[in-house]
Amino acid sequence: MMLGSDNEFLTQGGPGTPMGDLLRRFWMPALLSEELPERDGPPKKIRILGEDLLAFRQTDGRVGIVEPHCPHRGANLYFGRNEECGLRCAFHGWKFDIDGNCVDLPTSPPESAYKDTIKLLSYPVREWADMVWVYMGPREHMPELPQLELGLVPAGHRFVSKKWQDCNWVQSLEGAIDTAHFSFLHAIPTKDEAARLDILRKTSAIGQEGGLADRSRWVTEDPRPRFRIESHDAGLVIAAGRKTDTTDVYWRIAQYLAPNHALVPVAFPGEVYHGQTWVPVDDTSCWIYTYSWVPDRPLTNAERAKYASGLSLHAEIDEHYVPKRNMRNDYMIDRELQKTLSYTGISGVSDQDAAIQDSQGAVQDRTREHLGPTDVGIVEFRKLVMAAARALQQGQPPRAAASATGYAVRAGGWIAGPEKDLATVMTERFGHRNGYVGGEYGLAE
Amino acid sequence: MMLGSDNEFLTQGGPGTPMGDLLRRFWMPALLSEELPERDGPPKKIRILGEDLLAFRQTDGRVGIVEPHCPHRGANLYFGRNEECGLRCAFHGWKFDIDGNCVDLPTSPPESAYKDTIKLLSYPVREWADMVWVYMGPREHMPELPQLELGLVPAGHRFVSKKWQDCNWVQSLEGAIDTAHFSFLHAIPTKDEAARLDILRKTSAIGQEGGLADRSRWVTEDPRPRFRIESHDAGLVIAAGRKTDTTDVYWRIAQYLAPNHALVPVAFPGEVYHGQTWVPVDDTSCWIYTYSWVPDRPLTNAERAKYASGLSLHAEIDEHYVPKRNMRNDYMIDRELQKTLSYTGISGVSDQDAAIQDSQGAVQDRTREHLGPTDVGIVEFRKLVMAAARALQQGQPPRAAASATGYAVRAGGWIAGPEKDLATVMTERFGHRNGYVGGEYGLAE
Amino acid sequence: MMLGSDNEFLTQGGPGTPMGDLLRRFWMPALLSEELPERDGPPKKIRILGEDLLAFRQTDGRVGIVEPHCPHRGANLYFGRNEECGLRCAFHGWKFDIDGNCVDLPTSPPESAYKDTIKLLSYPVREWADMVWVYMGPREHMPELPQLELGLVPAGHRFVSKKWQDCNWVQSLEGAIDTAHFSFLHAIPTKDEAARLDILRKTSAIGQEGGLADRSRWVTEDPRPRFRIESHDAGLVIAAGRKTDTTDVYWRIAQYLAPNHALVPVAFPGEVYHGQTWVPVDDTSCWIYTYSWVPDRPLTNAERAKYASGLSLHAEIDEHYVPKRNMRNDYMIDRELQKTLSYTGISGVSDQDAAIQDSQGAVQDRTREHLGPTDVGIVEFRKLVMAAARALQQGQPPRAAASATGYAVRAGGWIAGPEKDLATVMTERFGHRNGYVGGEYGLAE
Repeated sequence: MMLGSDNEFLTQGGPGTPMGDLLRRFWMPALLSEELPERDGPPKKIRILGEDLLAFRQTDGRVGIVEPHCPHRGANLYFGRNEECGLRCAFHGWKFDIDGNCVDLPTSPPESAYKDTIKLLSYPVREWADMVWVYMGPREHMPELPQLELGLVPAGHRFVSKKWQDCNWVQSLEGAIDTAHFSFLHAIPTKDEAARLDILRKTSAIGQEGGLADRSRWVTEDPRPRFRIESHDAGLVIAAGRKTDTTDVYWRIAQYLAPNHALVPVAFPGEVYHGQTWVPVDDTSCWIYTYSWVPDRPLTNAERAKYASGLSLHAEIDEHYVPKRNMRNDYMIDRELQKTLSYTGISGVSDQDAAIQDSQGAVQDRTREHLGPTDVGIVEFRKLVMAAARALQQGQPPRAAASATGYAVRAGGWIAGPEKDLATVMTERFGHRNGYVGGEYGLAE
Repeated sequence: MMLGSDNEFLTQGGPGTPMGDLLRRFWMPALLSEELPERDGPPKKIRILGEDLLAFRQTDGRVGIVEPHCPHRGANLYFGRNEECGLRCAFHGWKFDIDGNCVDLPTSPPESAYKDTIKLLSYPVREWADMVWVYMGPREHMPELPQLELGLVPAGHRFVSKKWQDCNWVQSLEGAIDTAHFSFLHAIPTKDEAARLDILRKTSAIGQEGGLADRSRWVTEDPRPRFRIESHDAGLVIAAGRKTDTTDVYWRIAQYLAPNHALVPVAFPGEVYHGQTWVPVDDTSCWIYTYSWVPDRPLTNAERAKYASGLSLHAEIDEHYVPKRNMRNDYMIDRELQKTLSYTGISGVSDQDAAIQDSQGAVQDRTREHLGPTDVGIVEFRKLVMAAARALQQGQPPRAAASATGYAVRAGGWIAGPEKDLATVMTERFGHRNGYVGGEYGLAE
Repeated sequence: MMLGSDNEFLTQGGPGTPMGDLLRRFWMPALLSEELPERDGPPKKIRILGEDLLAFRQTDGRVGIVEPHCPHRGANLYFGRNEECGLRCAFHGWKFDIDGNCVDLPTSPPESAYKDTIKLLSYPVREWADMVWVYMGPREHMPELPQLELGLVPAGHRFVSKKWQDCNWVQSLEGAIDTAHFSFLHAIPTKDEAARLDILRKTSAIGQEGGLADRSRWVTEDPRPRFRIESHDAGLVIAAGRKTDTTDVYWRIAQYLAPNHALVPVAFPGEVYHGQTWVPVDDTSCWIYTYSWVPDRPLTNAERAKYASGLSLHAEIDEHYVPKRNMRNDYMIDRELQKTLSYTGISGVSDQDAAIQDSQGAVQDRTREHLGPTDVGIVEFRKLVMAAARALQQGQPPRAAASATGYAVRAGGWIAGPEKDLATVMTERFGHRNGYVGGEYGLAE
């Protein structure tokens, strides 16, 4: 159990909070590139870490992320004109570029120096891996973009989506690194292996590729995986071993990457990799950026169609990126199905995760928790991120922010002999004890 | 007028408040039995006295009422599986029975004693009189179920419904024991006695049985009934006498039964009895359980159809038990009708009561009241319930909670000579000065 | 920039605030007369300056504005019967006249003096200029109705409408007296003068009469008008001069009339005059009463139809007087139109104003403003109204409240030689340096 003050420390990310300060030392996705499809197109209202902002793509294709209110009389630049490399307020025509400079101030004479004194708050932006990234921290501490493999592969090798979630980001991320929950939440509680296989095929659950029926069964049959945790520069390797039909161990190995990424513990070699990044909208809702990629081949049209339709970790969403099955419609739970072939009666891994994570409360009350041996990944995550936030308050910048290349790691599954330690399993599976694959892309190790 | 602090004392029922403590010393309806129709069916979210709870009917038919959040990681058991005499969390499979015992904890080894340390908060439950009753107070003070006559008659003799109300429970109950308001709120303001009778027949107003036109006219013609109040173990007899066409007095005699029941002052011998129980959802909304019964015969199908359609004190409701005419649609008030045959232009006694009670505000501001001689029932109710709450804070348990059999009383109407005192009138009408009828059912007097 | 405390001082108008006290020293529109079409018709719920009130038109045609809750037990008189010169509570029949006297109290004997002690709060009401006006201040300081010309002309000469706005009233009024914003917000950004003329005709923008294309072009071409401000008993003359095609100056002269009126700076002699009055609902929303009038002829049916359809300053509204284009639908902004013939892509002057004013925030944060030379009208307005509120706190009543006849002024446009001072321009245009026209109506000057 946690102190209430620690729970607040962990979950509050607004301006001036310790965790908010920590998160602001890292780049984070602000939008999908597709949300700003057009140069000189309409600005888009966004909200990150409790800050209301505007994003716009100017004439040269670059994206700006700025405060929304014009410094003159506070009109919202959302209603402004995005024209000729700047956003012009519709009230009196004051115009700003993506760096926040006032480039025209028509209510003062042209010779006036007044406009040089006017600045619009703007944040550094990078467009990378089909996402627009923003850095909201102190400029002098701006790190490199985290070298997630997703962004290192050619664009055709990846698929990126986003979805809204109605709860604090921390409990949602904790759901991802807590790989023990697959034994129930995503279980297919049947002894009929043909039915199991049919469901796996239809729902395109994670790990749908070769051997999936056995793996699905092993996960369902062993609800007490043994955990091994290893830290590295960018985060944590979180491995969970389950019983198989032999003495071998079925390892599902996730990666937590500080402060707000997690990679999925499913892919065997040759399968599709998946990962997620959580971006707090405020303390009670977040965006989840979800990505799937293959290192060595383009995704097929069939795979893209599958993800776009809301299978695997991707959600079926509406035009505002809100999942169609959500807390307002009880995730369209089917209580009859829940009695037979689905543990939850909720369709799809993404919606099952959302339902259970939202159900913990807008912000989970961790003072009433009872943790056990399968929760060690969560415990280590909390220790790491809270220690980093505390260290930052003492002036010590986060190690992970200085380790951009350390993010080029993989997560996935493996079957190994019973006596092997984690380093051996990692090396067998990934060729590196941290899962590091940066070398393939020409990065310094 | 009341002090603001007394108004808060009277109307606030959350955990830890004096009135909340008092209410928690009594059993109260949590749901209709029909809301949990199925063994192993879906759990139902309920909210009572500001506490969010889950109700579920387990495999053996018994009902549990428990806190909603799993002690493990706080997931809501609403999404759980109701199976094999327990509710199992969909996150990691922890399972609880209706007494809150953890009966399976799959994330720990079978031999672990960890699960014996895990408890889910659960409240004692009884199913009685077509309702599921819950006791939310200290176990060592759990009383008997109140022996309301409704529950003593055979099931076929009664009809029970529930309806949502958008205000504090106290002012709604006060509306029920304030029988003076019938002269206006429910009046049929016409001199055309044929029209009056026609309306009474169609709307099936309370007291629709023989002699109703005269009684309706007397009520309309005398807005200043004379009140007589008598206390007994379970509550108050509240009698109001009105003029008739002779020197006789038309008595309408209600019962207040502590802390949250009231019986309707209308039935003459042979007519249908009615009563209501208020259960706070929180301080600004409540459920009203409404019941009609006949001691000595089954209700007819016609009577059941009438109540189910929303006539008499029962409301016409939607699938969530929310009245179709409510504050969000101005109770579908018909301003033309209000000019002619209905004092309010709102159809039906139930909706008329709801409209005027909601209109007093989410919580009536009693500091601005101006009470008069017809408000003595309300005054005595407040004194009684506030004194009981204050006594409980001093360690003295409420007398009514120890008087379960004292609830077997009736309320109703009578016509008596002008000089008779209340005890005489009560004895004439009910055979007992408190209206007690428990003896008919073999209870100790 | 402004201190946060000054911004609160300026924008908060609830009971007991300094600005609320000031506003309560003036009459203000409470409803349109058309909202109470019928004697003995249904009461109407209104909210002014954070106070919930009821308005009703009684049997003799007079209108009452009273507190909504019956002094007896707090039931809302909205559900009461409006009958025989009074509003009767539907609960127990207590009845009140428009002055708040209790004229019947049926729960007490007729001979009782209790009812003489019962009062319902009521405010003085006047019906004038198609509006119902209310005075919510101390009775002994009740001023005359402000003699706006709108109310001095015959009824057929004027058109009055109202519309909801989703922001604090002050920033909306500031938008009206800040006439510099016409260069952008209402601009038609085209060099194609035929297209300009066509749009002006179709949208019936203000100033659509003769010479409009030139004036529209001058406004668009000169975003830096030179301001001249002159104070008078009732408020401020706020004049803005723009360049023309010669050395002449195009003057647009607005009037601010304390505390919450503004007249539009557009009409040339013979054109239609326009004005607006802001009435706070609370601190984050207001009603804008909008009026158009001609001194010397009735409005034509075509003009009335134009205004009723939502052109000129009038809005296209729904049955609740809420503009159809509003913050909930992004004012139906057309981003393609914004690239070509409309600066905002929002149709109509009224909706353009609403969009930009709402966008400043529910209450504009004036601590982050950067004002310039074109904002002097706003600065003078703030000084005047804040000084008046401060003086009132010291016991000095507002000068304008004692100057009812001083409101009979006009605002409008004029073209004058380059060297003329404001007094000369005003006298040329209006025959009086303050724009005073009261003498035409037989008022004392």
